[in-house]
Amino acid sequence: MDLATCLKKMELVGVLAFATVDSDGAPQIRNISAIHYEPDALYFFTARGKNFCKELLEDGRVQILCYTKYKEMIRLSGKAYAVPGDEQMKWRDKIFEEQPYLGNVYPGDTRSIGIIFCIDKAEIEYFHLGVNPIFRETYRLGDVKLKEKGYFITESCIGCGTCREMCPQRCIEDGSPFTIRQNHCLHCGNCYENCPVKAIERR
Amino acid sequence: MDLATCLKKMELVGVLAFATVDSDGAPQIRNISAIHYEPDALYFFTARGKNFCKELLEDGRVQILCYTKYKEMIRLSGKAYAVPGDEQMKWRDKIFEEQPYLGNVYPGDTRSIGIIFCIDKAEIEYFHLGVNPIFRETYRLGDVKLKEKGYFITESCIGCGTCREMCPQRCIEDGSPFTIRQNHCLHCGNCYENCPVKAIERR
Repeated sequence: MDLATCLKKMELVGVLAFATVDSDGAPQIRNISAIHYEPDALYFFTARGKNFCKELLEDGRVQILCYTKYKEMIRLSGKAYAVPGDEQMKWRDKIFEEQPYLGNVYPGDTRSIGIIFCIDKAEIEYFHLGVNPIFRETYRLGDVKLKEKGYFITESCIGCGTCREMCPQRCIEDGSPFTIRQNHCLHCGNCYENCPVKAIERR
Repeated sequence: MDLATCLKKMELVGVLAFATVDSDGAPQIRNISAIHYEPDALYFFTARGKNFCKELLEDGRVQILCYTKYKEMIRLSGKAYAVPGDEQMKWRDKIFEEQPYLGNVYPGDTRSIGIIFCIDKAEIEYFHLGVNPIFRETYRLGDVKLKEKGYFITESCIGCGTCREMCPQRCIEDGSPFTIRQNHCLHCGNCYENCPVKAIERR
């Protein structure tokens, strides 16, 4: 898997879930299909009067999720910004051209209530629960720093093998210290909870 | 549409998007299918070591979204809580029985790393973009107060008809004042932006 394939899969799913936070710090989620994909960015349309727009302008942090027909989960985390005024019309008209049904929702000139946001820096996580062991990998769009997440076995490991036995995905390997194959880890925490010497770190 | 039908549709979609907020106040979203539906509550399974679990225990606010094959969007907003210890096993085993694939992800006793959360008070929004005009309605699960959202025309209306002309869904009716048919409103804000006397309120 790679970034370009992830973006293509998102485009093929079409209708994606977009999460933001509102001014009370509460999670907000809705489906968005008015999206145009470029190799290095995605552009999407919403109406200026929607709470979604308010949340993007005030905070901008967004996670986008899709689930494919092949049972893959792809999640994009980034920050959205409104594109400059002189580019608004170009992307808006492109999205309406690619997705003619939008013309039923916003007929004629009413599309001018729309605003175009762009995401060109993001972390993209690919997660496949349907293979054994499960598979996950992270890619970057643009210049972003990836955050290390999950569980890691430290030098305090005594090599007892408890974690290896407790791992639902059998993705812990012998060694000194033992190691977790990160691409196959569920992040369930069973190793962490059961290590007799607390040698496992959560990051 | 009604509450029971919405819950049934969510169950049939199966894999839903769950949004929470993390300790940085950032939006977090993931797919969850390990859900059991009762008429008055839903129960779901996650692992104690996942950030999702941490976010639920620390904040608890969650929005759940599904998109049906008939292009309907259903969104549930509520607060999740961990069920009491003596009920954990009952719901966990029911979910694993209903969805045998979970036994591949968490084989044998490793399912004990799971924790069951319940949502029994929620607002459920139904939104259909594929009909003309679009249709939306809100239901309640349990004893919750529904929040009034959207645009409302006040007594300051001068009856000029600008809003009616600007509405992409043609869902504004003549009268004194004019009124917005709330079940057909996109919340796009085009009436609000164009009212010459600022007679339209956003709530």
